[in-house]
Order: sequence, then C-alpha cells, then structure tokens
Amino acid sequence: MNSIDKRISELGLVLPQPVAPVANYVPYVITGNQMFISGQVSVTAGGDLIKGRLGENLSVEQGQAAAQACGLNLIAQMKAACGGDLSKVKRIVKLGGFVNSNFGDTALDIPKIINGCSDLMVDVFGEAGKHARFAVGASALPLDVAVEIDCVIEIDT
Amino acid sequence: MNSIDKRISELGLVLPQPVAPVANYVPYVITGNQMFISGQVSVTAGGDLIKGRLGENLSVEQGQAAAQACGLNLIAQMKAACGGDLSKVKRIVKLGGFVNSNFGDTALDIPKIINGCSDLMVDVFGEAGKHARFAVGASALPLDVAVEIDCVIEIDT
Amino acid sequence: MNSIDKRISELGLVLPQPVAPVANYVPYVITGNQMFISGQVSVTAGGDLIKGRLGENLSVEQGQAAAQACGLNLIAQMKAACGGDLSKVKRIVKLGGFVNSNFGDTALDIPKIINGCSDLMVDVFGEAGKHARFAVGASALPLDVAVEIDCVIEIDT
Repeated sequence: MNSIDKRISELGLVLPQPVAPVANYVPYVITGNQMFISGQVSVTAGGDLIKGRLGENLSVEQGQAAAQACGLNLIAQMKAACGGDLSKVKRIVKLGGFVNSNFGDTALDIPKIINGCSDLMVDVFGEAGKHARFAVGASALPLDVAVEIDCVIEIDT
Repeated sequence: MNSIDKRISELGLVLPQPVAPVANYVPYVITGNQMFISGQVSVTAGGDLIKGRLGENLSVEQGQAAAQACGLNLIAQMKAACGGDLSKVKRIVKLGGFVNSNFGDTALDIPKIINGCSDLMVDVFGEAGKHARFAVGASALPLDVAVEIDCVIEIDT
Repeated sequence: MNSIDKRISELGLVLPQPVAPVANYVPYVITGNQMFISGQVSVTAGGDLIKGRLGENLSVEQGQAAAQACGLNLIAQMKAACGGDLSKVKRIVKLGGFVNSNFGDTALDIPKIINGCSDLMVDVFGEAGKHARFAVGASALPLDVAVEIDCVIEIDT
C-alpha cells in the first residue's frame, strides 16, 4: 500500500471499481505524459446513482457527495490506468465540472458542489492535487445524475 | 486514397467541406503533437442545420444523426489540418459532447446521442479512434443546433 | 512595458487583479509548455459581477461585455503565471465558452457573445491570439454570472 492508497484509507474512503463506459468510448486516453479521463458520473462504490437537479431536488450537501463520488470514480480510473500505482500521478491538471441545474439563482452553490471533488483531490494528492477547473450548470446529464466531472492529469511515463 | 479515406467511402459517408467558423476564431490549433479542434455543430455536408432539443422535438435517432454530422465535420477539419492526409491522425484523444436538452429525464439518451460521433470515430479510425469523452446537456447551442462536439487529437508531426 | 501590455493600454483596456478562486482549486496549472487556466467569470476590474441570462435579461451587447471581462481575467491570470511577462504567451490554444442561457432560440447570439472574448484575444495577441473554441449555453453559472470561459494556452518555458 503506497502513501496515496494509505491516505485514501485514512480519509475513510473506498475506491470503487472503475466504472465501465455506458457507450462506445474508453475510460481514459494517454497522450505523451497527459491522461484525459472520460466524464465520470455520480455513482457510488455500491452502484447507486446520485440523482437530482440543483434548484429542484438537490441540496448543496447532496451535490457535494455526488461530486465526491465523481472524484472517487476519477481516481479509480487513474489507478487502473497506472497499473494500480497512484504514485505515478504527478499532477491533477484540470477538472471540468457539470452540475445538473435548473434556471434558479444558484449563486455559490455550483462552486460549493464541485468542491466535493476539488477537496477530495487535494485531500488525496496534496499539492499535486491542486488543479484548474471550470464549474457550470448543465440542463441534463446522462442517467439523470446530479454531477459529471472529467479530468486531465499529468503522469510519470 | 489512403486507408482512412477508403474506410470513410466504404461506410457510405462523404466528408463535408470544413465548416468556416461563424465568429472570430480558427477551426483548429496545433500545439506540440496535439490538435485542438473547435466545437463543430450539427450541419450536414449539404449545409442543412440539424436542429432540435432533446425532451422537446428531437428523437434519439435524430440526435445520433446530428452527432454523426458533428463527427464528419471534425474529421473534415482534421483532414484540412493534415494537408489532406488523415493517416497523420495518431489518436482521437477526447470528445466534448453537448446535446441541446431541456430539463426532462433523459436517462441514457444523451450518451446514446453522442454515440453517433463516438461510433463514427471508431468506425473510421479503428483502435486509434477510441477516445475519452464527456457527454452533457446544454440549455442552448449556437444556431439552435441539436449537437455540438469539440475534440482533441494526437497527430504525427 | 512590453508590446503586449502596450497593446492592452492602446485598446483602452485595464487588466484587473487576477481573481482568487471562490473554492478549493488554483487559477492555473502548467504542464509541459501548456497552461490550463480555470474558468473565469464575468466580473469587472472594479469587482462588479456581470449577471444575466440570455433569452431573459441579457442583451447580446451585455453578453459581449461579460465575455470581454472573462477574457481580461484570463489574461490577468496569464500575466501572473508568467511572472508579469505576457510575451511568454506563445499561443492562445483553446477557449471553452459558457453563456448563461434559457431555452429560447438563440441562433447566433451565443457565438456573438463569446466573440467578446475571442476578439479580445486577437486584438491583444494578434496571430498568437487565434484559438480554437467551443461556445455553448449553460442552464446556470457560478455567482449567477452571464458568462464563464476557461482557456488552454501554450507558453515559453
């Protein structure tokens, strides 16, 4: 168990099995020392979809849990891509965060929700987890989930 | 005619003329061995816009045709960028897929629609066509089209 | 004052202070010779949020001013990242443009609005400012702003 896996365990978190794509694409592509990871939706390690739409039936807390679930799925994909060795992750470069949202005024709710994933990355990877990101509302997401997040990382090759 | 062009022809498909940007930007930028291609909208080789909004007036089948049109426009841009030689495309790295969607429950419709482009990339480029992607709903798209997709690829330089 | 700063000044524009992230992430990450800049929202140098939703309470002109504000914030982040020397910006590679939009027909409004940022990049950086982009509608944006834009650039390292 390396230091990253240990940290995940200390945080009381469990990495899910990497989620298989629901369509004709792959979970990640490595090009040079960058890895592009497909958008991961908010599904728990137990397989439960976290659904909901901000401004309608999703609290900020539920949204944050959804974003954390996306983050755990992203890390599960990184681990699979790195042959099980998360110490090969050099830097979380960028998150693209989409929150299922209606037209209501959301003020700081969208950033707070995507923090569920941003905080996870920093908690797990430390300085290397600090990333650029965007956080926006989407009128609909696959499987009616609450949150979808994609990611670019830099890896040791 | 190289093997990629032959494959496009065998699939009964015709590459459109690369679409000129509708604003002050360029169709693609090459940086190192990556090429970032601007979001391509669902317009056919004949110049007809494929419009519609999921949950309102767009079937999954119409959406898939729209996504395929985006994909053909992306490939047309790749071909122009590679001086006509699509064998220089080493890998389709990532698709960013936006489907014009209302707030209705869309379940698997958004992934199925973006498959219209994902399937095309794999049909045309084989293993090199397998990509990471995100697929989300957008409340509005330029020209009121049904689908917009952007792309990152790796090229031989 | 180098030529880029001079050009900004000649355009009658003032770079704002780089905006601090409203959540647990960083304004930019450099990987190789690429820099990924976090989504910048439409806030003026004076700190006023430019809010509104296309099809509801945002004109194309207001949206263009919002997109220009995003662009100035992006350039402010570039300048901070380059130790104050904007001549290190080799190329604006890609903009990801989100316009707060309802379901109304927006036709060319979304591209025209994101032009507020695209035009700025070309005005300021000339040929190096020509970029790939996507421009889409979002059902909601952080702080209820009208526009959010993220960016990938190539830098001299």
